[in-house]
Amino acid sequence: MTTTSEPMTAPAGLKGVIVTETELGDVRGSEGFYHFRDYSAIELAKSCTFEQVWYLMLYGVLPAAGSPELADFTARIAQYRELPQRVLGLLRDAVTPHADPLYALRLALSALAIEDDVQPMYDTDEQTRLRQAERYAAIVPTVLAAAYRLGRGEGPIPADPRLSHTADYVRMATGQLPSAADERALETYLIGTIDHGFNASTFTSRVIASTGTDLISCLVGAMGSFLGPLHGGAPSRALAALDEIGDPANTAQWVRAQIAGGRKIMGFGHAVYRTHDPRSELLKSIVAKRDDPLVRQAIAVEDAVERTLAELKPGYPLYANVEFYAGVLMRLVGLDDAMFTPTFCVARVVGWSANALEEARRGKIIRPSAKYVGPPVRT
Amino acid sequence: MTTTSEPMTAPAGLKGVIVTETELGDVRGSEGFYHFRDYSAIELAKSCTFEQVWYLMLYGVLPAAGSPELADFTARIAQYRELPQRVLGLLRDAVTPHADPLYALRLALSALAIEDDVQPMYDTDEQTRLRQAERYAAIVPTVLAAAYRLGRGEGPIPADPRLSHTADYVRMATGQLPSAADERALETYLIGTIDHGFNASTFTSRVIASTGTDLISCLVGAMGSFLGPLHGGAPSRALAALDEIGDPANTAQWVRAQIAGGRKIMGFGHAVYRTHDPRSELLKSIVAKRDDPLVRQAIAVEDAVERTLAELKPGYPLYANVEFYAGVLMRLVGLDDAMFTPTFCVARVVGWSANALEEARRGKIIRPSAKYVGPPVRT
Repeated sequence: MTTTSEPMTAPAGLKGVIVTETELGDVRGSEGFYHFRDYSAIELAKSCTFEQVWYLMLYGVLPAAGSPELADFTARIAQYRELPQRVLGLLRDAVTPHADPLYALRLALSALAIEDDVQPMYDTDEQTRLRQAERYAAIVPTVLAAAYRLGRGEGPIPADPRLSHTADYVRMATGQLPSAADERALETYLIGTIDHGFNASTFTSRVIASTGTDLISCLVGAMGSFLGPLHGGAPSRALAALDEIGDPANTAQWVRAQIAGGRKIMGFGHAVYRTHDPRSELLKSIVAKRDDPLVRQAIAVEDAVERTLAELKPGYPLYANVEFYAGVLMRLVGLDDAMFTPTFCVARVVGWSANALEEARRGKIIRPSAKYVGPPVRT
Repeated sequence: MTTTSEPMTAPAGLKGVIVTETELGDVRGSEGFYHFRDYSAIELAKSCTFEQVWYLMLYGVLPAAGSPELADFTARIAQYRELPQRVLGLLRDAVTPHADPLYALRLALSALAIEDDVQPMYDTDEQTRLRQAERYAAIVPTVLAAAYRLGRGEGPIPADPRLSHTADYVRMATGQLPSAADERALETYLIGTIDHGFNASTFTSRVIASTGTDLISCLVGAMGSFLGPLHGGAPSRALAALDEIGDPANTAQWVRAQIAGGRKIMGFGHAVYRTHDPRSELLKSIVAKRDDPLVRQAIAVEDAVERTLAELKPGYPLYANVEFYAGVLMRLVGLDDAMFTPTFCVARVVGWSANALEEARRGKIIRPSAKYVGPPVRT
């Protein structure tokens, strides 16, 4: 009992408990639909640039292609992609062979907090917060690509402000400018991944923001949850399953072995969707256009997994989730498996920052209670 | 609506909502009492060493002074206080003049995550988690002291494993071994500050831990909330108020001006206590033994503030909180104002890590919902 009013016990894990209001979007699990602001996320992913949807998330308005506000925003983002020399120097010293690029990103953001002497959102105006949200999300692809290359003994590639955020990310990670088709495929994935309801890392960003702290604290905290195995969303795991299965004819046997061993089927099932994951369907429609053995394998395996699961767990629908085709798509555009989860983060950091700013505007600390269940206190 | 069951709307900020069970302790606001495990925290602070209570928090048993388990634990902690050369090198490169030592701590913990390739708690056994909890909390005073000194152009002082955690911290920060009385005064403060119910940073640590992620993710996330102005607990602010008031005779006038200006009275009032803060009373009893003008000023100002507040806000009791005498105590033992909040963190990191481990053991993700309140979605 930590309050004067009678405490109320929430369901385990706060499941289904509404803790805040948001104008940023929602996931409608039973409909297989999600939206950013007042737009269908899938429609945005199909028809917009990453920069347009990023602007929509921060400013609440979808800027028209070619509009001056979009041009200004894109120019700022491009400039913010450049990594300060001091931070690059720290990465060179800190990154060990094959270090997780996300661990390096946490280090770089922590260094930027010192470099910029970042101030609490509680003490800064909205304009400053928005610039910080642009800056600290924009630098993410540059840091991740640099850390990835340093971990493989390769030199980092500086940002090129003339390129789109998506194309520049691929170039900085792989050393190769992507084809227009690859750029568009990855951009569609990135847009669709910017936000997705009140997942654990987004909630973390908002809990931290509710204390009025600085934005880097929110992003670094959200990354901590993002790294958690229960958070979900590791496209490399789903692809590892594909590699393990090999010939799609082995699928049913593999699924049975997984379930008999009490293991999860990575890439299938979702906490919220009770029907097809719209992100999976979007990504499938993109990769299905390609004549590629990996794509044929993935489609055949998806079909076989869903049939086997329907047989083993009738009435409990399990469909391919965003991880499944995300891994396929990323491999097609030339990203290494080690960059799959980092690439997810390139997009999701936009959602975390928009959520942090919205929560900071509310100005009310999120601070629940716990119940003591240990032995009686000695007196 | 993100679940199939009917959502329930929680009170703003989840106030009074029980989200988890804990054996680590509780705060009884109306009684002015708090406990760690099954012991009164104040009694522990009066009679134990910091290492004993740290062990109690992690292992659930209070080890006797001189017991082999306490000796082993103390030896490990002393060894873990030593900073790896690589991390020290990063601090030398990253710390700017007068950088916040807590920002530097976040950087150092992020670097240690790379250095150690720290693994998710979900994938590690209890023994490994406990060693990590010891290691990452033990290094905190060394990093904070080194960062503080580097920020002032002074050389870091290496840890001395022969000293107590408390004495070594003071020595590494100030360059001077504290007197036995100063060491004991600070140790009492540190013990009393290890944990305190379900405050915002502790909740953050648990939300992140609930994803099964690594311990450093939890600590770094908790630090993000800890830095928030609404989190409370910045002993330097309370002392700044004392400096501003000067002669206690000015107190009533100063309090009236603060309230007329809509400003908070730093060091007074608490989210949970409805009576005297037991931590404030403990610290007051310690500093009151000293014949010192700052102590005489603080006691006179506390009395005048409480009287003025009772007059201006009758029926709404506001008492001195832990910040008020914490600042006085830290100044008496020779710590600089810039080290007050970092010193709080030296203690609280023990609570964050114990909470993270307990939550990770539960293995259930904390993932509530949000309600969309933006414009209708375009179709």
